[in-house]
Amino acid sequence: METLFKDRKLLLSTFLILFFAAGAFAEDGSRLWLPSEKNYDAEVTANVQNPTVDIAVRELRSQWNGAPVRLILERARRRRKADDGFGIIGNRTRGVTIEANTPQGLLYGAYHLLRLQQTGEDDGHIYISESPAYDYRILNHWDNLDGSIERGYAGKSLWQWDELPDVVSPRYEEYARANASIGINGAALNNVNANPIFITTEYLKKAAAIADVFRPYGIKTFLSVNFSSPVLIGGLETSDPLNADVQKWWKDKADEIYRLIPDFGGFLVKANSEGQPGPQDFGRTHADGANMLAEALKPHGGIVMWRAFVYAASGDDRAKQAYDEFTPLDGQFLDNVIIQVKNGPIDFQPREPFSPLFGAMKYTPLMIEFQITREYLGQSRQFAYLAPLYSECLQADTYCEGEGSTVAKVTAGHIYRQPFTAIAGVANTGSDANWTGHPLGQADWYCFGRLAWNPDLTPEQIADEWLKQTFTTDSAFVEPVKRMMLASREAMVNYMMPLGLHHLFAWNEHYGPEPWCYVPGARADWLPSYYHKADTVGIGFNRSETGSRAVFQYYSPLRETFNDIETCPEEYLLWFHHAPWDYRMHSGRTLWSELCYRYQAGVYACREFQKVWDKIEPYIDHERFSDVQSRLRQQTADATWWKDACVLYFQKFSRRPIPYELERPIHNIE
Amino acid sequence: METLFKDRKLLLSTFLILFFAAGAFAEDGSRLWLPSEKNYDAEVTANVQNPTVDIAVRELRSQWNGAPVRLILERARRRRKADDGFGIIGNRTRGVTIEANTPQGLLYGAYHLLRLQQTGEDDGHIYISESPAYDYRILNHWDNLDGSIERGYAGKSLWQWDELPDVVSPRYEEYARANASIGINGAALNNVNANPIFITTEYLKKAAAIADVFRPYGIKTFLSVNFSSPVLIGGLETSDPLNADVQKWWKDKADEIYRLIPDFGGFLVKANSEGQPGPQDFGRTHADGANMLAEALKPHGGIVMWRAFVYAASGDDRAKQAYDEFTPLDGQFLDNVIIQVKNGPIDFQPREPFSPLFGAMKYTPLMIEFQITREYLGQSRQFAYLAPLYSECLQADTYCEGEGSTVAKVTAGHIYRQPFTAIAGVANTGSDANWTGHPLGQADWYCFGRLAWNPDLTPEQIADEWLKQTFTTDSAFVEPVKRMMLASREAMVNYMMPLGLHHLFAWNEHYGPEPWCYVPGARADWLPSYYHKADTVGIGFNRSETGSRAVFQYYSPLRETFNDIETCPEEYLLWFHHAPWDYRMHSGRTLWSELCYRYQAGVYACREFQKVWDKIEPYIDHERFSDVQSRLRQQTADATWWKDACVLYFQKFSRRPIPYELERPIHNIE
Repeated sequence: METLFKDRKLLLSTFLILFFAAGAFAEDGSRLWLPSEKNYDAEVTANVQNPTVDIAVRELRSQWNGAPVRLILERARRRRKADDGFGIIGNRTRGVTIEANTPQGLLYGAYHLLRLQQTGEDDGHIYISESPAYDYRILNHWDNLDGSIERGYAGKSLWQWDELPDVVSPRYEEYARANASIGINGAALNNVNANPIFITTEYLKKAAAIADVFRPYGIKTFLSVNFSSPVLIGGLETSDPLNADVQKWWKDKADEIYRLIPDFGGFLVKANSEGQPGPQDFGRTHADGANMLAEALKPHGGIVMWRAFVYAASGDDRAKQAYDEFTPLDGQFLDNVIIQVKNGPIDFQPREPFSPLFGAMKYTPLMIEFQITREYLGQSRQFAYLAPLYSECLQADTYCEGEGSTVAKVTAGHIYRQPFTAIAGVANTGSDANWTGHPLGQADWYCFGRLAWNPDLTPEQIADEWLKQTFTTDSAFVEPVKRMMLASREAMVNYMMPLGLHHLFAWNEHYGPEPWCYVPGARADWLPSYYHKADTVGIGFNRSETGSRAVFQYYSPLRETFNDIETCPEEYLLWFHHAPWDYRMHSGRTLWSELCYRYQAGVYACREFQKVWDKIEPYIDHERFSDVQSRLRQQTADATWWKDACVLYFQKFSRRPIPYELERPIHNIE
Repeated sequence: METLFKDRKLLLSTFLILFFAAGAFAEDGSRLWLPSEKNYDAEVTANVQNPTVDIAVRELRSQWNGAPVRLILERARRRRKADDGFGIIGNRTRGVTIEANTPQGLLYGAYHLLRLQQTGEDDGHIYISESPAYDYRILNHWDNLDGSIERGYAGKSLWQWDELPDVVSPRYEEYARANASIGINGAALNNVNANPIFITTEYLKKAAAIADVFRPYGIKTFLSVNFSSPVLIGGLETSDPLNADVQKWWKDKADEIYRLIPDFGGFLVKANSEGQPGPQDFGRTHADGANMLAEALKPHGGIVMWRAFVYAASGDDRAKQAYDEFTPLDGQFLDNVIIQVKNGPIDFQPREPFSPLFGAMKYTPLMIEFQITREYLGQSRQFAYLAPLYSECLQADTYCEGEGSTVAKVTAGHIYRQPFTAIAGVANTGSDANWTGHPLGQADWYCFGRLAWNPDLTPEQIADEWLKQTFTTDSAFVEPVKRMMLASREAMVNYMMPLGLHHLFAWNEHYGPEPWCYVPGARADWLPSYYHKADTVGIGFNRSETGSRAVFQYYSPLRETFNDIETCPEEYLLWFHHAPWDYRMHSGRTLWSELCYRYQAGVYACREFQKVWDKIEPYIDHERFSDVQSRLRQQTADATWWKDACVLYFQKFSRRPIPYELERPIHNIE
């Protein structure tokens, strides 16, 4: 290993030269939220030598900005929890000590201290103790072999498979550093719609080269696997998980992987979902499939993240299917398996209620999967700061063990005992210089990491620290932009799908509105009318006791709250109810009028965002200013498009005028 | 002639059956402003039998809606002026007498009486005496041989050249009737960029068939001629107007025309303009050219309308050239020649000051040419009621013989004696069922006719009567829509080219904004920058004494008013001055801010028009309602496009922020 690290150091120097040289002239956004200052001279000492600790020392040495003081990194067993948490104690005049149980904890402590300094919160005495809420804090990359990214909007894949393992792009380390700085400790490199080639020896060697870069930053490498791999690349006749040859094949494959990547994290699996193969192809259960893989990984300490994103073409209400399919399997999974559940029951919509699976499985660990890439939220052309969406879900109360059983507490293992915990976000990174396409999209990567560390941080706190690190601490900039960020997701819900509407998107492309979308022969549940069910009576999906009865997947008192149209929160009204057009809303307006008002409010909000942004021009660089300005223009234009398309389409059913005080549509339904 | 009229009657019956059958179910707009009622039974008598009077009798008999009373048509020599005016006296209970010197006068009187009835203004005693302000009230069709229309936006040409003369479309008579009902008495059938084929024998026979349909409606047929016709179709070596063979060729051609069309009106000529041939090709003057044609037509009573739309590629300020070229020729034209001058010095822009040629030629009759088709005013996708534009020009004071020498008075022959007077409008008609593409575009055809009859009618009066005839007399409809119509042209000026800006259009297409337009090798005066001259100092074309000195083409005190930036009306500010960005406007705003405000005001106005229109839905048919609704949507979208393109482009020069209280752009400059 020693030689490896030597090589790494050489590479690192090269990278640092490149990186900081770039930092000097660029505001192409490649710097992310990381400090660009350099050449300070704090006296940094550590009581342990280790590649990870070395990084911590280097970061502090070059970034600590102020009077030269002693900064001490101390690996100690004093901390109660045996995790990657840390303590920080001291002040900026007398010196600061960071202590942690693990090298990773020291690195996180170092980044935390630098963050305090960058955001101007390092005044006076510092006394901090932090522990991560989840053990595994993972990015899922939906990256394909050909360099494309499914639902990626920031260029091509970061991973240069054709160059690897010989050429190792400096971007891998920049990526690792950015992740480490916010506590992310894992990355699944390839698409869940998995090409089995990724676990051939040739490609494992490439992945190993990446893993080598990640390792000192405390980032574990994961791979998505295709359940049919034994047949597709193993030459077996079957992939039946109960077949001994299949089991052996996977065991051998795991052994091979761990020879190349000793700290390999494990497998991410999308099985029997949207055409992917899985154990049900052989009459086996999800548990049979997951456990077979888990057995193979277990000797090496690897885990299986088994996705619960399943829905049959001709099944019952799609929103119910994951729950119906997985809850009967509770208790049947091995202890290194975790079920990965999307935040909502459908698919990363602008707003969904939380998935009823959270809290529903007492003997099986569940992890939450958020989407950072904005597949359904304007991609990289529009902006919606996602912390409010994540936080809304994490703080939602499942009531599984009475009031206060939030999704965060359930998934972090505070309600039911579980061997380990995890959280995943589908990455929004790509080859674009600024990583995320939309410059403000970096905030979503950042906030995912911060919430994975501590789900109780507020979206406002996170926006505040992200803005200060990424742009400037000037409050004339931070305050208005923060308000804009906090309002942005609600604005998008309003102009896209207010009041619980969902999945009104154009076929497959998931950007623009197409509530009328009809594709001959298409699955019903891939068409918007399946979800909005607009007719001359009203609009919305009746999931109450008189409808699909999906409300009964929630615990009391939520099920009763959702079931009764009068108590159902209006943001979920049309998710759970088919409400008449003249239904009276809290505003006093009819449902139809309220719908029009919400769409209009979304457009007004976008216009306001443009004003906010134009006013902050003096405070930031021209490049990012004009890039965001330009995207906000597009956003307002597209918000109007959404409003017009939806209002005009639903008006065909409501047969009521758009309230005359609102702006009229400027698009026709083609 | 008697047989001809017999055929016409047969045709007429066929047409009427078709026409009224259509009228019964259609609100495709084909009815125009004409009454659709039928089968009333007024007792109508006339003291003269004549095809034109017969039409008057028939119209009154079928349209007079009320108690059966006696309606008397009386051809008499009692009227002072020997024109097509009329008197109407009587009331709707005791009977009404229409008297006129000519059959046409009786027809106009009949339509006038029906108009009074349709608009509900026939109550009480009627005592009316009307005379047309202009002798020739002509539509110019820019229709080509292949059925296309230059700058036409309502389908293909009305004239079916391939079918003619054998097949005579009923549309010709519908067209003639519509024109007669508003006093239009002439039509130049073909494009001023004239194909000489139109005056070959074959095509003259076709034109003659159309002329036969027009004749009883009092409409004379004109043709645009190509000055090179003697060479192109005559086989001569030259088209030199002083060449005897050329002169003879035109004389023979005129004789031939009059054999086929005894009441032929004359020639319309675009010569030495935009690449068209003309007398200057032979070193002769416009007067030489016009007079040669006039000699040929004179024996038959025909006239020459010679266009003054000339500007050289490399000449002085384009706005000055027509004046500079034509005023030296004053007095050199024969008395059956009239110079046809566009309303403004450039080219049918949303707003121009009147052409300084009006009032500048004392011994040469001038006729005004308006454009009814909206080449530069949103074509048929956007709407601007043009009566305010026409009226603004007609009522503009030239001061040529002191205060009160309006353009209307000059061109109507009240200032200088002239043998005859004329006015022309470039038609907006086409093969579309509703004639004009945009349903509200019919108002422009209508108002041109009404103003050609009486330029002192106000745009409001005309809109009022047009709306009542075309839609309904219900004031809940008429009043708001009338206000919208009256505001529409100013709205368009605001969102396209406020404060005297002009010609910011996309290359050749003349619909969308392209102030940055640059075409390599293009004539400078075909590019927007020639006109707006934006730079970091300011914007506008300096035509004052320190610039091109175009202001001196106007009479005092106008020249002084225009010359001084402080007294120049703000609507012409950037027409006459290159004003600094910080120039203080009457509003107290800087020029830059004011420009932004005007663009925004244009967009706001369009949004308001949409609200107005949506509210009148209950009062009119669905077809026209939704057609206009849809076009108004496009208009608001395109107004925003205009605003964004122009503001963002000019901002590159002004380097000032768009006032923050205004909506931000939603388009980027591509």
